[in-house]
Amino acid sequence: MSFSSTLPFTVHWGDCDAIGIAFYPNFFAWFDNGTWNMFEEAGIPMDGLMRDYNGFGFPLVDAHASFHNAPRPRDRLVLHSRVEGWSDKTVRIAHRVMRGDTLIAEGHEIRVWTVRDTDDPDKLRAEPVPGEIRERFT
Amino acid sequence: MSFSSTLPFTVHWGDCDAIGIAFYPNFFAWFDNGTWNMFEEAGIPMDGLMRDYNGFGFPLVDAHASFHNAPRPRDRLVLHSRVEGWSDKTVRIAHRVMRGDTLIAEGHEIRVWTVRDTDDPDKLRAEPVPGEIRERFT
Amino acid sequence: MSFSSTLPFTVHWGDCDAIGIAFYPNFFAWFDNGTWNMFEEAGIPMDGLMRDYNGFGFPLVDAHASFHNAPRPRDRLVLHSRVEGWSDKTVRIAHRVMRGDTLIAEGHEIRVWTVRDTDDPDKLRAEPVPGEIRERFT
Amino acid sequence: MSFSSTLPFTVHWGDCDAIGIAFYPNFFAWFDNGTWNMFEEAGIPMDGLMRDYNGFGFPLVDAHASFHNAPRPRDRLVLHSRVEGWSDKTVRIAHRVMRGDTLIAEGHEIRVWTVRDTDDPDKLRAEPVPGEIRERFT
Repeated sequence: MSFSSTLPFTVHWGDCDAIGIAFYPNFFAWFDNGTWNMFEEAGIPMDGLMRDYNGFGFPLVDAHASFHNAPRPRDRLVLHSRVEGWSDKTVRIAHRVMRGDTLIAEGHEIRVWTVRDTDDPDKLRAEPVPGEIRERFT
Repeated sequence: MSFSSTLPFTVHWGDCDAIGIAFYPNFFAWFDNGTWNMFEEAGIPMDGLMRDYNGFGFPLVDAHASFHNAPRPRDRLVLHSRVEGWSDKTVRIAHRVMRGDTLIAEGHEIRVWTVRDTDDPDKLRAEPVPGEIRERFT
Repeated sequence: MSFSSTLPFTVHWGDCDAIGIAFYPNFFAWFDNGTWNMFEEAGIPMDGLMRDYNGFGFPLVDAHASFHNAPRPRDRLVLHSRVEGWSDKTVRIAHRVMRGDTLIAEGHEIRVWTVRDTDDPDKLRAEPVPGEIRERFT
Repeated sequence: MSFSSTLPFTVHWGDCDAIGIAFYPNFFAWFDNGTWNMFEEAGIPMDGLMRDYNGFGFPLVDAHASFHNAPRPRDRLVLHSRVEGWSDKTVRIAHRVMRGDTLIAEGHEIRVWTVRDTDDPDKLRAEPVPGEIRERFT
């Protein structure tokens, strides 16, 4: 079974658009929060990633969401995040947003392992995800 | 040929994340901006949609993006938005973000035509997109 | 003593700007979160305000913050919010953001009690804050 | 007369809150946009500040706004930004947001000149604003 984590959160007033429901880009911000929360729970805090590996934020190459129900201000939601799979240089993370038993939205992120050159921090390159990181998620 | 519009914009300081590149949920905010800009150019301003049709914000059912290059603060980008197709109750809009000739990101939104009940504004229902709206985009 | 509430929260990756510290407008978003959290704890949920009083979001007339220390991604902060005083039609709310014992930022909001006309929801007017709302905060 | 710049912009759907007016923290995001736009027009682009001076984002120590009228989605606004004055290590920038001849909001930012230590980029210190930067604004 793959590693997963849950993150409860409140939909804030400013998260909502002019019709009174969550502005859809915020779902992706919540996905991002869920990913970093999951890494932290797996023992790989974000600042360690950046410092120990010369990491460059584990940037996105692909993101998708489908929306099933519209959350309102002050709704209490729960985000479920899970590593779905790895390729050599990427990880695929699945996210589901629930309000109680109701599915609100679901989607995924694909992130590519990216490091800064030690000699020239402006030079970036994709590299295989270090084995010790992948192991934390199994 | 399908209706399209272009929207030049600047990547702002606050649009970027802690590693110095655009925070990816902002691409979807830009897509949303592009959609409303395109509707306005097609002669269907957003407030008209809401008022004349009892519209409920033309909400998303699906959104996707793939990311090819990372924009930095103060980059000048151009968003190209285009109606890709219609189903009975939905529209699919394609977006491409360019920096000069370089593709930065591309993706799509699928939105469902949603109206409020005239007697009970809390009741929402999906309905066929009015023909006069579809006609504006051909 | 005046009513107060506390709200613990995490500084998210996307809350930070390109230099790696919290983008300062987010402090005001946190203040806003703190205000609605405090109203909820006082037994006046936001949706009740809007529905029972024809309220129009209790909008801001004034906001101020001073910044003492810069939070980083994943920092755990606590927001302390407190009603500082009332005028006839406004409330003044003080906010302090702490990281442990360290003061990160402090500021205030002044909000004006605003209602929609029952006959014409587009007509807004400032009115005295209802006594039953003020009483909840003493 | 002090240096000033103007920045026209559109209020986007996602800039608005659940009651349909601009979410107030966004005014500060617009102030920030106005500041960087003004620096660029003065011949001091943001990336030059960071690179040439080891600058650390010219962070805020103080921000204030008062709100006079509530913008709606798709409103066309103009931001007027102006250097109001200097102290040894800080600059005070005034901002006014207009919709045509109507004042929407006004406020200020105070920013402190902050540089990274050349030997240890994690060490920050406030320093006098370089004379050549101040000169650009007169």
